[in-house]
Amino acid sequence: LEFFMEHYKLAFIGFGNVGQALARLLQSKEYELKEKYNITFSITAIATGNHGQAIDPNGIDVVDALRTAKHDGDFSSLSRSPAPANTLSLIRTCKADVLFENSPVNYKTGQPAVKHIRTALECGMHALTANKGPVVHAYHQLTALADKQRKKFYFESTVMDGAPIFALFRSALPAANVHTIKGVLNSTTNMILTQMEGGESFDDAVAYCQKIGIAETDPSGDVDGWDAAIKLSALITVLMGIPTKPTQIQREGIRDITLDKIATAKAKGMRWKLVCTARREGMSVHARVAPEMVGPESPLYTLTGTTSIAQFETNVLGMLSIIESDPSPQTTAYGLLADLLNAISGK
Amino acid sequence: LEFFMEHYKLAFIGFGNVGQALARLLQSKEYELKEKYNITFSITAIATGNHGQAIDPNGIDVVDALRTAKHDGDFSSLSRSPAPANTLSLIRTCKADVLFENSPVNYKTGQPAVKHIRTALECGMHALTANKGPVVHAYHQLTALADKQRKKFYFESTVMDGAPIFALFRSALPAANVHTIKGVLNSTTNMILTQMEGGESFDDAVAYCQKIGIAETDPSGDVDGWDAAIKLSALITVLMGIPTKPTQIQREGIRDITLDKIATAKAKGMRWKLVCTARREGMSVHARVAPEMVGPESPLYTLTGTTSIAQFETNVLGMLSIIESDPSPQTTAYGLLADLLNAISGK
Repeated sequence: LEFFMEHYKLAFIGFGNVGQALARLLQSKEYELKEKYNITFSITAIATGNHGQAIDPNGIDVVDALRTAKHDGDFSSLSRSPAPANTLSLIRTCKADVLFENSPVNYKTGQPAVKHIRTALECGMHALTANKGPVVHAYHQLTALADKQRKKFYFESTVMDGAPIFALFRSALPAANVHTIKGVLNSTTNMILTQMEGGESFDDAVAYCQKIGIAETDPSGDVDGWDAAIKLSALITVLMGIPTKPTQIQREGIRDITLDKIATAKAKGMRWKLVCTARREGMSVHARVAPEMVGPESPLYTLTGTTSIAQFETNVLGMLSIIESDPSPQTTAYGLLADLLNAISGK
Repeated sequence: LEFFMEHYKLAFIGFGNVGQALARLLQSKEYELKEKYNITFSITAIATGNHGQAIDPNGIDVVDALRTAKHDGDFSSLSRSPAPANTLSLIRTCKADVLFENSPVNYKTGQPAVKHIRTALECGMHALTANKGPVVHAYHQLTALADKQRKKFYFESTVMDGAPIFALFRSALPAANVHTIKGVLNSTTNMILTQMEGGESFDDAVAYCQKIGIAETDPSGDVDGWDAAIKLSALITVLMGIPTKPTQIQREGIRDITLDKIATAKAKGMRWKLVCTARREGMSVHARVAPEMVGPESPLYTLTGTTSIAQFETNVLGMLSIIESDPSPQTTAYGLLADLLNAISGK
């Protein structure tokens, strides 16, 4: 059966939590991918932000790469070819079949990820990313380029980690037009609110989230609603077809939600949630991110910790809600693996 | 552009609520199907249980068919060809491209729907159904036959109406193995329990469901858990790959849920739900349908009326929950339309 196997050369741009989780997931699924999908793979290029780059046409050893990342080592020590001048020339020279773009998100411009993805598509690779920037800043251009190249630009992990939202509408809900979107899309603020319901101060709750690795040193991206807004922008851009940037969304974070407000809600049997809402009206959309009190009649009430939800109203079904419980870097990595398998099977 | 159009001849077995809703949906989507999917269609055969059959190679007028159904008329009056002796010969002679099998469910054997679908696949048609019988009684055989014929046997509407459950796992969640399934899958019992929470007796709640058209004259299929059990069987059979029949599922309906029990639950801030559960253990599965008390921390608590939920634990994500609010014959019809579009696009 060996001659039915397809071999895929993979390039990784960014090798942080998500890139490493993907490498581990690919490794653990190696046998299953061979058995069930008739594919084998090798990682032929890795570009990191601060720890150099590696190219090896014969495949970089995954264990070596993970060990190097763990010890903040220099990836150029793993390189069998001379290291290219920069990430774009790495993409151009590595001859990979698939690019995984997992560099840090840039809310304002989507760069340099947009350039990375454009270059990869121009070189005939599928471009798969967990980075929200390119989706809100260049979805239509990159998708048109991908179509022209007969390749895929997929980004399942950008919203709700590995939960299949974009694939759902792409492959399972044909002829469905999305009218409204509602969701709790930022896990960190939801965890902060859950901790505050348990009596912790806002600062302590933020510190807790930093400790468990779900909040940045500067928590502004989460607590001021930027992450929720960029995810809502991505959903609107792709599912409603209306290009939308996070700055176009009315946005209020959770800094004004005091322990007093939480106690008042609790007394009414309710909870505060950072809610994303978008309603299509003709060719425009009204969208906002803001704290709302929700009661136990809403599935939003049940979301504690890092659990998230997206609800969709379409012209073909009643409201459809998707809840993802307990995401992790592994589930984000799964979203990228699903993108890979869907891209190569044309789904 | 006319020469890129693909024309599909459709045969309907069963023309009750679901068949009629599908005919109306197809009619209302005619322009969109042409514009966005480059397909046109005609209904070339309709077989009913008690009102005769019609065949017309040039297409039966949809308005005529709906009017005939509304007035309990005889479909043979719409036939341009001599009516075949029975449904199987209608399938063999109608030369359709797609069969929609929507005859009444037979919990025990799946017949005659299994025969209808087998015959359609043998004749080179896609076979699409909202009938649960063939799924639990012949999924593996019919799918193998469909694969051999390079056609599709799809049945999205059998569980949670039009909500995409089977397509989700088929097209959006590659390499995911389902470990556990939990759900509230029967709308009628959920509506009965909701009405009883409002103070109605069991009998009045059943009568209400009969009045709004969601319960049969003999409500046993719903209240004794048969419908929930066959839906759970379908999920286990397809998503876990373990052939399972409703009689193999430990089953308890809602007849023992008294107003007293409901009041006791309410006093605790809880609700009774008819819960389906399946847990895979190796190559076997433990499955049951039984009433359970659930609290506001569970999304099951929020399901009132006809809203339903399915929750899946897999090896690749945390728990994934799908909620469908307010289903109707239109949403069931949408599931069949989605099956059609997915079948012809190979998804």
